[in-house]
Amino acid sequence: MNWQQLSGTEKSKYFIDEYLRIREFSTALCSRLEIEDYTVQPIADVSPPKWHLGHTTWFFEEIILVKCLSEYTRFHQQYRFLFNSYYKSAGQHWKQSQRGELSRPTVEEVIRYRSYVDNFMVNYLSNAEIGDDVLSLLEIGLHHEQQHQELLLMDIKFILGSNPTSPVFSEKPLGFASPVNQIWRSFNEGIYSVGASDGGFSYDNEKPRHKNYIYSFAISENTVTNGDYLEFIDRGGYGHAEFWLSLGWEWVNDNHIGHPLYWRKIDNEWYEFTLHGLNLLDLNAPVTHVSYFEADAYAKWKGVRLPDEQEMEVYLASSIDDSVEENEHEKKHGDESGVYHPIKGDAQTGQVWCWSKSHYSGYPGYKPYQGMLTEYNGKFMCNQFVLRGGCIATPPSHYRHSYRNFYAPHQRWMFSGIRLAKDI
Amino acid sequence: MNWQQLSGTEKSKYFIDEYLRIREFSTALCSRLEIEDYTVQPIADVSPPKWHLGHTTWFFEEIILVKCLSEYTRFHQQYRFLFNSYYKSAGQHWKQSQRGELSRPTVEEVIRYRSYVDNFMVNYLSNAEIGDDVLSLLEIGLHHEQQHQELLLMDIKFILGSNPTSPVFSEKPLGFASPVNQIWRSFNEGIYSVGASDGGFSYDNEKPRHKNYIYSFAISENTVTNGDYLEFIDRGGYGHAEFWLSLGWEWVNDNHIGHPLYWRKIDNEWYEFTLHGLNLLDLNAPVTHVSYFEADAYAKWKGVRLPDEQEMEVYLASSIDDSVEENEHEKKHGDESGVYHPIKGDAQTGQVWCWSKSHYSGYPGYKPYQGMLTEYNGKFMCNQFVLRGGCIATPPSHYRHSYRNFYAPHQRWMFSGIRLAKDI
Amino acid sequence: MNWQQLSGTEKSKYFIDEYLRIREFSTALCSRLEIEDYTVQPIADVSPPKWHLGHTTWFFEEIILVKCLSEYTRFHQQYRFLFNSYYKSAGQHWKQSQRGELSRPTVEEVIRYRSYVDNFMVNYLSNAEIGDDVLSLLEIGLHHEQQHQELLLMDIKFILGSNPTSPVFSEKPLGFASPVNQIWRSFNEGIYSVGASDGGFSYDNEKPRHKNYIYSFAISENTVTNGDYLEFIDRGGYGHAEFWLSLGWEWVNDNHIGHPLYWRKIDNEWYEFTLHGLNLLDLNAPVTHVSYFEADAYAKWKGVRLPDEQEMEVYLASSIDDSVEENEHEKKHGDESGVYHPIKGDAQTGQVWCWSKSHYSGYPGYKPYQGMLTEYNGKFMCNQFVLRGGCIATPPSHYRHSYRNFYAPHQRWMFSGIRLAKDI
Amino acid sequence: MNWQQLSGTEKSKYFIDEYLRIREFSTALCSRLEIEDYTVQPIADVSPPKWHLGHTTWFFEEIILVKCLSEYTRFHQQYRFLFNSYYKSAGQHWKQSQRGELSRPTVEEVIRYRSYVDNFMVNYLSNAEIGDDVLSLLEIGLHHEQQHQELLLMDIKFILGSNPTSPVFSEKPLGFASPVNQIWRSFNEGIYSVGASDGGFSYDNEKPRHKNYIYSFAISENTVTNGDYLEFIDRGGYGHAEFWLSLGWEWVNDNHIGHPLYWRKIDNEWYEFTLHGLNLLDLNAPVTHVSYFEADAYAKWKGVRLPDEQEMEVYLASSIDDSVEENEHEKKHGDESGVYHPIKGDAQTGQVWCWSKSHYSGYPGYKPYQGMLTEYNGKFMCNQFVLRGGCIATPPSHYRHSYRNFYAPHQRWMFSGIRLAKDI
Repeated sequence: MNWQQLSGTEKSKYFIDEYLRIREFSTALCSRLEIEDYTVQPIADVSPPKWHLGHTTWFFEEIILVKCLSEYTRFHQQYRFLFNSYYKSAGQHWKQSQRGELSRPTVEEVIRYRSYVDNFMVNYLSNAEIGDDVLSLLEIGLHHEQQHQELLLMDIKFILGSNPTSPVFSEKPLGFASPVNQIWRSFNEGIYSVGASDGGFSYDNEKPRHKNYIYSFAISENTVTNGDYLEFIDRGGYGHAEFWLSLGWEWVNDNHIGHPLYWRKIDNEWYEFTLHGLNLLDLNAPVTHVSYFEADAYAKWKGVRLPDEQEMEVYLASSIDDSVEENEHEKKHGDESGVYHPIKGDAQTGQVWCWSKSHYSGYPGYKPYQGMLTEYNGKFMCNQFVLRGGCIATPPSHYRHSYRNFYAPHQRWMFSGIRLAKDI
Repeated sequence: MNWQQLSGTEKSKYFIDEYLRIREFSTALCSRLEIEDYTVQPIADVSPPKWHLGHTTWFFEEIILVKCLSEYTRFHQQYRFLFNSYYKSAGQHWKQSQRGELSRPTVEEVIRYRSYVDNFMVNYLSNAEIGDDVLSLLEIGLHHEQQHQELLLMDIKFILGSNPTSPVFSEKPLGFASPVNQIWRSFNEGIYSVGASDGGFSYDNEKPRHKNYIYSFAISENTVTNGDYLEFIDRGGYGHAEFWLSLGWEWVNDNHIGHPLYWRKIDNEWYEFTLHGLNLLDLNAPVTHVSYFEADAYAKWKGVRLPDEQEMEVYLASSIDDSVEENEHEKKHGDESGVYHPIKGDAQTGQVWCWSKSHYSGYPGYKPYQGMLTEYNGKFMCNQFVLRGGCIATPPSHYRHSYRNFYAPHQRWMFSGIRLAKDI
Repeated sequence: MNWQQLSGTEKSKYFIDEYLRIREFSTALCSRLEIEDYTVQPIADVSPPKWHLGHTTWFFEEIILVKCLSEYTRFHQQYRFLFNSYYKSAGQHWKQSQRGELSRPTVEEVIRYRSYVDNFMVNYLSNAEIGDDVLSLLEIGLHHEQQHQELLLMDIKFILGSNPTSPVFSEKPLGFASPVNQIWRSFNEGIYSVGASDGGFSYDNEKPRHKNYIYSFAISENTVTNGDYLEFIDRGGYGHAEFWLSLGWEWVNDNHIGHPLYWRKIDNEWYEFTLHGLNLLDLNAPVTHVSYFEADAYAKWKGVRLPDEQEMEVYLASSIDDSVEENEHEKKHGDESGVYHPIKGDAQTGQVWCWSKSHYSGYPGYKPYQGMLTEYNGKFMCNQFVLRGGCIATPPSHYRHSYRNFYAPHQRWMFSGIRLAKDI
Repeated sequence: MNWQQLSGTEKSKYFIDEYLRIREFSTALCSRLEIEDYTVQPIADVSPPKWHLGHTTWFFEEIILVKCLSEYTRFHQQYRFLFNSYYKSAGQHWKQSQRGELSRPTVEEVIRYRSYVDNFMVNYLSNAEIGDDVLSLLEIGLHHEQQHQELLLMDIKFILGSNPTSPVFSEKPLGFASPVNQIWRSFNEGIYSVGASDGGFSYDNEKPRHKNYIYSFAISENTVTNGDYLEFIDRGGYGHAEFWLSLGWEWVNDNHIGHPLYWRKIDNEWYEFTLHGLNLLDLNAPVTHVSYFEADAYAKWKGVRLPDEQEMEVYLASSIDDSVEENEHEKKHGDESGVYHPIKGDAQTGQVWCWSKSHYSGYPGYKPYQGMLTEYNGKFMCNQFVLRGGCIATPPSHYRHSYRNFYAPHQRWMFSGIRLAKDI
């Protein structure tokens, strides 16, 4: 959406609509939760859902209201501290690993906080004279909230999944995946441009669009399935050091890892915990919730490799009918479809984020955001790997093919998967 | 209460009344909490209040219903695992430090669990033919629940106290303590008997009553006040190794300890967080929430020492009018008085548990309970120190002078205080 | 030895002889070591032998030379810091767990340091006018050095024992223990005095001698043998929570403990690493290198208990022919006999330190040393258990029946063993 | 050296000479050490020098003797385990962080081990019929030993530098660096080839030579000096989060980092510990022993950036007179010059390894070694950053411009430094 070309009144209307739509979706996502589910933090990576609802609100408060509305008074003095995630330039913040120690503010208080900020925001946005610089910040704030919508689903899944009573998030039964035929798509050696073009939203880390010399390669149209991955397990993949990175081998042994995060073996049968409950493992569905270590080991075991992120972007951008693709993506998201688990393994993207072999770092000519948002991306460019392609939990209007998601190589509570590549 | 001498019907009535009174008090204590307060676990020592409500119920389920009622079916199969605290003979249990990771069962489900078990229990107790052995187990179960009532207040205080918004548990204003004159009471050298007599309830660790050779000593009628302790701080007590045990000195330095747990210095003024809110420090009130390390260092700084537990019991038992004393104790408890903080520093016991210099171990001739309850006391007789005298949070009908409370030397989230002694 | 009654010249001669004898024995003990053996620290508890040689020298430097000899100049300014173990009043000290990180000073430099201090000491002691207060400090210094001689053997054993090549300390073959018949000795209820009398050396923690009310008990004349203990293992003792203290059960499981420290199972045969090499386990010899947790669990499994330290002292002091006993003890020490391993399981003391069930704390009326040595004993009276009776590595002239050795309940690199007791 | 073109006899002579020269240099490097210096391991990253001497010997034993000499018997059965660093395919290995716990084998035994293997090796190499495949392994073994020669100097420096007595490795006085004028060299946008060509030795990770699209950039001819870096410190660089990666900021704060590894502030004066002793900080000399975090923060503070490894290789390869450059490099190494510290800050390479912003990963088309050596490089391609250019401790005949050194971003005990780059 190229809103810069709209008139002031149109901009105002556009952003009020977007703001309300996106803000409401965050609370709607949580509507199935019990109060207790909003509050706990089973591991440091996973934040309590009520914290996400507070933090995304804090974000608008800090980047817009406090800066632009002279008459604005913060809802609660302590929230500045409690809902700051990691922005050192915004003052001190509560420690990430201790978010689950806080019973207060209650969910109800957080909801009141959201309303308070929303009222100010909508009021402020009604003003047709707001400059594009502020609207650009607002647009980042909306994408930030959408990022947290995906995090909410990841975190809710972890909270429910670590509970021995296996609570069900959605009662809607999951369908079954269809069998998949592996197809390789080939690309020729040459110079390819990668990165976000001007026009349309993107984060600072997707720019500038720039040239890369890429050698010829093939990439799989399908992601690795549960059935494929089970074969790796059954052939002893977790027990053979030769497939593993050195740090990966330590991770496997120190943490007694032997299968993807949500798999469970019960009475000699494999199950998978999903947001739709504990189901028999669907062998045709994409494997998900694997770490970089596991993705890399699987690829080595198959005698191939993971793609780098440039190859992945070239592949994603080359879809025969890109507009159809994006529409498809729209439909795939849980919000629309009510399906919160990847069950399409055939020629599809947008089901699972695929690990690339690329370390997350700045593109040539990378310019970070200025001000508080300089901390948004650049400072994490260390010991993280890039994932590409979006997943079932990614809000469709938030996604674009230049999107660079990133996680540490041992993390796997996101909907991560494996797309193979090879030299040709 | 010597219920063994009652008739079967009287026993039945007596125990049904006690059971209902005590069970209701647990939920009543929590009635001021938000759902979120029931759920979190800021540190491993502190359990979520809903866990206490479930665990005390599990206790009756395991020691009475499952054993004595052949038709009994457990409320939920997983609760056997989730609400077992540490009884290895009762099967596996959820890890203590991870209780706060569980959003389910919800508070509402736990309350339903309590009702389910209560119905079975009252029904079962209506039977006038129950043997005294089962009633003895029941009596332990009731005292166990009362122990957890004190833990509930301790844990609620920690949960609220670690929240930067300092939530208030009771709106009732705290009064002020009166000034205290230190009085020493002396005891002559000789043989003294210590421990619980037969008749009346006591735990296995209070028996048998036995003789001790005690040298002449004096003990303070008053516990150390906040004002006394502040002088220790102001004179640099935390910075001088010579007052501290070796492990205590490490504890102070590794954890940057410089004052009792709930003291806060704000704008150069000392405050204390209490269940009645954040108040200016009352210099006449007993110091509380100090570790054994702090109690011992304070005594050394004063040139005296902590009493041992035998001295403390001799002192407690020697109160001029013991029956008045016990009545007083009755009134002091928060339940009756609505006061959840020690504010009487003058000749009183029952305000704060006083650290003894005695390691917690079995008395000569100690016989642990049999069966599952063999794990109740004996297995903790290592690296714990005994505290004596009861506190404001101890249910009066739960207390007796032979009571041996015990904690590790670094712990201080209980209402612990300091009573000095010296050789004479 | 009651040296106070000697003349000044006799005192001088007595102490010079003792000083030289004891100091030389420390280096003699190490004479079998390679330079590399003097230097390493496999775990924090174990110090490099060269550190012991330096620290015992530092002790004389700090308590005598620096205080009493105005013209004395320290051998090396950094040694004050490097060889201070934990005396806060003597300034800062190098961290205990990092002693093995230091390649310098070399062994040769430490030996030069010893000679330097020895020369000053002998010179100083030649003076017949030295006051008894200084000679008392000197006497403590000599006992301190003897304590470290036992530590040297413990630490050397650990250093060699943790090496996969199992180096041999003494080539002298170990004999075999004779079979043992368990005999219980009984004591009547009554008041018993315990603690060191005046006259003769003792540490501050052994005083004052004081009365105890002791109930009738029986104590085993023999310590538990390897054969006895093996039965505990074979019957699954390490796998049954009911025998273990709560902290002990955690220790067993967290550290995968399944046998005494130096036992090794090779090709289904039990061996024991000793200072005489890796030998087949001698079933008649005393079990040694067990923790308090193991000793306590073994006693519970046998249906009896550990003695408390008062019972143990009463027992030790009651030996039918005490003078013979002490002579025997003399001969048992490795120095005289060349045997550095307990192989006598029959009616003997002095082979292994026996765990008592008593927590290490001050006797009634305990007065710690003044000055720097106030840190010698008192500050460790927390979370340690007392062991009694001496061991094969204890220098005979260092031992007396009132001796209170102490270790944390998980430690077991000392020559610790088990003597059972029971109520009668 | 293109030895493949030599005759069998010439090859034999060439490799025997090289083998003896390189093997002797390892022990020569250690000749200034005390036995104790060979033995300790102050931190997990630093290995005891005697371990390096053993491990490099083990390497030849495992890759050549055991494989190619049927009559060969290992020197000691346990060494296979003790001197394996991390090769899972070569069986179990002693844990890296515990190398300093081993007093045995002694230095003398390790030297005997070296002689034993050297005799077999020279004997074996006298055979003119050895295939090129084996000679290629041997060549890797020689480069492996040279890598460990650099590690030896790093580790010796750390061992001596962490000792409070600051021992001196070389008595030769260090000269002073000349003042430096910063000069930027520019490169145009275009396709550049990077990586090792065939002919000449290189590791698997330097291949294949491949094309990169590189944007125009400038790179500094000089590395950052101590004086430059001191300004960063004095301006509060370590206290401002905005210059630091998120992980770097944690590292700085958790470890209280405020200056390069070997800097010491004494009486308000900056000193630097070097292998030539503790010297006043030379402001004109290159800053060294900085982490990636520090290099990156310094560059951000200067408003520029670190080069990526491709830019660095293009720069290194473009030296006007490359052969002169390599000769210069030859002379710079401590071995020839007796200088073990970087003191040339002007237009020089080879003084300090310069951090690139590139994550260490496989080049397009990367093929790891086969067999045991597959573990040599590939398995470390995770969470490491590439350094380029060689340092004063790198054996000259070991170095080439395609060399990819790599370390984790917090490590800094190697001779690492900073070369700045910028977009133009």
